[in-house]
Amino acid sequence: MKNKAITPRSEDFAKWYDDIVKTARLATYSGVKGCVIIEPNGYAIWENIQKVLDNMFKETGHQNVNMPVFIPESLLNKESEHVEGFAPEVAWVTHGGSNELEERLCVRPTSETLFSQYYSNVVTSYRDLPMLYNQWVNVVRWEKETRPFLRSREFLWQEGHTIHETAKEAEEETLRMLMIYKKFFTDYLAIPVIVGKKTDKEKFAGAEYTYTVEALMYNGVSLQSGTSHYFGQKFSKPFDITFTNRKNELENVYQSSWGVSTRMIGGLIMVHSDDNGLVLPPKIAPRQVVIIPIGNNENVIRTADEILDVLKSANITAFVDMSEKSPGFKFAEHETNGIPIRIEIGPKDLEANQVTVARRDTREKTTISLDEDIVFNIQNLMQEIQNNLLETATKRRDELTFKATNMDELKEIMNTQPGFVKAMWCGNEECEVKIKEIRGTKSRCIPFDNEQEHISDKCVCCGRPAKTMIIWGIQY
Amino acid sequence: MKNKAITPRSEDFAKWYDDIVKTARLATYSGVKGCVIIEPNGYAIWENIQKVLDNMFKETGHQNVNMPVFIPESLLNKESEHVEGFAPEVAWVTHGGSNELEERLCVRPTSETLFSQYYSNVVTSYRDLPMLYNQWVNVVRWEKETRPFLRSREFLWQEGHTIHETAKEAEEETLRMLMIYKKFFTDYLAIPVIVGKKTDKEKFAGAEYTYTVEALMYNGVSLQSGTSHYFGQKFSKPFDITFTNRKNELENVYQSSWGVSTRMIGGLIMVHSDDNGLVLPPKIAPRQVVIIPIGNNENVIRTADEILDVLKSANITAFVDMSEKSPGFKFAEHETNGIPIRIEIGPKDLEANQVTVARRDTREKTTISLDEDIVFNIQNLMQEIQNNLLETATKRRDELTFKATNMDELKEIMNTQPGFVKAMWCGNEECEVKIKEIRGTKSRCIPFDNEQEHISDKCVCCGRPAKTMIIWGIQY
Repeated sequence: MKNKAITPRSEDFAKWYDDIVKTARLATYSGVKGCVIIEPNGYAIWENIQKVLDNMFKETGHQNVNMPVFIPESLLNKESEHVEGFAPEVAWVTHGGSNELEERLCVRPTSETLFSQYYSNVVTSYRDLPMLYNQWVNVVRWEKETRPFLRSREFLWQEGHTIHETAKEAEEETLRMLMIYKKFFTDYLAIPVIVGKKTDKEKFAGAEYTYTVEALMYNGVSLQSGTSHYFGQKFSKPFDITFTNRKNELENVYQSSWGVSTRMIGGLIMVHSDDNGLVLPPKIAPRQVVIIPIGNNENVIRTADEILDVLKSANITAFVDMSEKSPGFKFAEHETNGIPIRIEIGPKDLEANQVTVARRDTREKTTISLDEDIVFNIQNLMQEIQNNLLETATKRRDELTFKATNMDELKEIMNTQPGFVKAMWCGNEECEVKIKEIRGTKSRCIPFDNEQEHISDKCVCCGRPAKTMIIWGIQY
Repeated sequence: MKNKAITPRSEDFAKWYDDIVKTARLATYSGVKGCVIIEPNGYAIWENIQKVLDNMFKETGHQNVNMPVFIPESLLNKESEHVEGFAPEVAWVTHGGSNELEERLCVRPTSETLFSQYYSNVVTSYRDLPMLYNQWVNVVRWEKETRPFLRSREFLWQEGHTIHETAKEAEEETLRMLMIYKKFFTDYLAIPVIVGKKTDKEKFAGAEYTYTVEALMYNGVSLQSGTSHYFGQKFSKPFDITFTNRKNELENVYQSSWGVSTRMIGGLIMVHSDDNGLVLPPKIAPRQVVIIPIGNNENVIRTADEILDVLKSANITAFVDMSEKSPGFKFAEHETNGIPIRIEIGPKDLEANQVTVARRDTREKTTISLDEDIVFNIQNLMQEIQNNLLETATKRRDELTFKATNMDELKEIMNTQPGFVKAMWCGNEECEVKIKEIRGTKSRCIPFDNEQEHISDKCVCCGRPAKTMIIWGIQY
C-alpha cells in the first residue's frame, strides 16, 4: 500500500522530506518566519536523545547549568574572529518594555562568551580545574533559508563548555566528546559517521581547530551533525580567565566546547525513512511496539493487554491501539509514525496460538507462537532492526563514497550522484574556494590518520603536491 | 560551628537568602542585567523537579512540544487583556543580523498566543480533542527589581496549554493541574500550600479565572508558587480556534494553561534552609547521602565504598567525598549544600562496628550498627527528614496565619509579623486597592469552600457586608 500523503523519495527528495516531517507530525512551521514548532512526535525523539546523551555526559563528569539567553553586544565583541562569524546572523533585542536599552543584547547564537565571562569570575586555582559544564538550551541564528530540523532560526541543542589546566587535557576533552558523539550516532541513531578535523576555512569562528561528525544522507548530501572545538587560550586571554598554576604562576586556562542539536532528527529522517513514512531505530524510538487487536473479540483484547503488560515490565515502550479506526488505517498510521514493531492479534491468530509481528524497517511479517517468550523475541527483533538500519546505512554510505584525482572527476561525481568524495588537497584555501564552485562542494573533514587513504600525489584542484586526503561533499 | 559566609536569618533575611544562593552555589548574577546563571547545584534541583513533574504530566495524558521563543507583535496583540498585561514587560527584537525586521518580535513572556495560533491550524473536529500539550522552556519578563529564582528577567518554567470540547472538561483540567501542583509541593518539596482562586484583580491577563498555589516563607512573606488558568473561549474566539462539535456545528474550543517555574527553588530555600546553609527535602535533593571517610585508613575506605555500593543499588544517590580537605571542612561544606544525610566513618566507628549518621534538618547525630540493614535505616531516615520538614513548615505556616476583622488589626499584623491573614471581603476592587497600601498587602486567594472560614460579617476594609473570606499577604 502506498502512502499517498508522501511524495516518493525518488521523485523529489526535498518534498519527500517535508512530507515525512508533516505526516509523521514531527514539526510544522509557525507564524514566526523561519521558526518551527516541534510537535509531540518530534519532541519525544528529542527527549530520548537528551536522555541518552545527558547520561553519557554525566558519566564523563559533566554537570548541567543554565546561562542567560541574552549576550550584551560588548561581550560578543570580545573575541574578534567569533564576533565576525556570528554577528551577521544574530537577532538583536533593543527594547525592554517601552524603554530603549542602553546596550543592545543579542539572543545567544552560542554561549562561548557567557561561559568565558562566568569562568573568569569563578576560577582562581588549578584546584578548581577542570570545570566541565553543559547546557540544554535554545539558540537563535538569523538564517535566510530554513528547513525544519536542518536549519531554522531557533533550534534546540546542548553546548558543553569546559576549561582545563593544560592544553593536553583540553585537547583530550575535545577528542573525548567527539568520540562520545560518534558512539551515540553509531549505537543509538544507527547512523554511520566519519569524524575528523575541519580545515581552517571551515572551523568554528574563534576555535584553534574543530572536530566534526559528518553523516551522509540517502541522497548523497552531507550533514554536519555535531562539532567539538578546541580553543586553546583564544577566549581565555581576551576574557581574562586565569588561574594560579602548580608553579604558583598566573596562567590562562585551556578551553573546549562541543554541541549537537535537533538537526540530528533531520539526519535520522534522511538516513532511515522511506516512502511509507518515518523509520526509527528502536533504541531512540519513543514508542517501540504498537499492539493492534483486530476485531472486537474479548480473547483478542485480553491477549493484547497481557502482551502489553509483559513488554512493559521488560521496559519495552509498548501501547495498544484501541481506537475505532480500521486495522488497515492503523497499520498505515503507525508505519508513517515509524513505530519499529507492530504486533497484530486477530481471532485467526489466536486460533493458531500465535501473533503476527511486522517490522517497520523491512516491512516483513512473521509470527510468534504464544508458547514462546515474547519479550525475548521482541528484544531480539529490536536488536535486529537496530543492526539492519546501521548496516543498510553503512552500505549505502560506502556505495556513495567516491574518489577523485582531478576536477573533472569531482565535477562528474557531484553533478550525477553526489556523495562523500575522497580527494587529495594541497592545504591552500584558494583550492577550497575553487572547489566550492562545484554545486557548493565543501571540505567535510580531514579524517584521522587511521582513515587517511592515499588517492594521488597531487591536489585534486591545483595539481601541486598534496598534503592530506580530505572528504568532500555537498552539504545541507 | 557557625557558617561565617552566611548572614544569620534573624539579622537580615534578604541578605541571608542571597548568602545561601551564593555559598551553596545555586546561582549567580550574570553580566546581563537582571539575568542569573543557574549553577550546577541549582540546576540539579531543577532537573529533579522536572523529572517528577514531567512524569506526573505524562501520567495524566500530556505531551511535550516546543514553540518558538519569539512572538510577532501582531500575534501578541490579538487578545486585548493579555497584551495589556504583558506588553509593558517584554523584550523586543527589532533586528536580525544587520536588517531591521518588518515586524517587531517579542521574546515570549508566556505562550498562550503561540499555542492558540497552532491549535487554530490543527484542530478540526471534536475527535481531535482534548489536546494536552506542555513545554519546558525559558521565558523573559523585563522586570525592574530582580532576585535570583524569585524574580529575574529570564526564568525557566513549564507551561501547559490545553484545549477541550466543553467548558466542563477545560475547567476540570484547570483544577486537576492545580491539584497536581499541590501534591508536588506537599509530597516532594515538603512545602504546605494553600490553593484557591485569585480575585479578578489578581488573575492572569486574559483568563476567565486563575487558580493559585500560595506558600508562606519563613519570614511570613507569601510566594505565589504556581498558577492554573481557565480561559473559556477568551483566546479561542480572537484566535479562531474552532472545531465541529457532536451536533455538527462549528464551536470555539475551551482552554486552560498552567505553569510553575524555577521560582520554586527560591521557595525551597526560604521555607527550609537555616543559618548553616541550604536544607533540601530528600525527595528532591540531587545528592541524598554523602559518605565521609575519616583518616586514611584502608578499612575505613573499604567500608565507605561498600556502603556506597549498597545505597546506590537501592537507588539512593550517594557519593563518597575522598577530597583532601579536613573532615570538619567537609561537614560544613555539605551542610551548606544541603545534603540531607551525612555518614561519617572513622577508625573508632569501625572499632565499635558502626557508622555515625548526621541528618541535615535537625543536625542530630546517631549511629547505625554495621550489623543492621543500612539501606532500610537510611530510607527510614530520609522519610523522617521529609516528614519533619513538612511538619515544621506546616506548624510555622499555621503559627503565621492570623485573622483580622478591621484595618487596624490588619495593619498591626502586617507591620509587626506578617503572614497569611484571613479576613472577609465585600467583593469590591476598591477595597483591594486600599489594602494594598499596607506594605503592598494583596489578596493571595479565595480558598475553596472547604477551607472557607467565617471570620466576621463585614468586609475588613469598608465594613460593608462580606461575600467571602480571603487570604491576604505581603508578596515576593
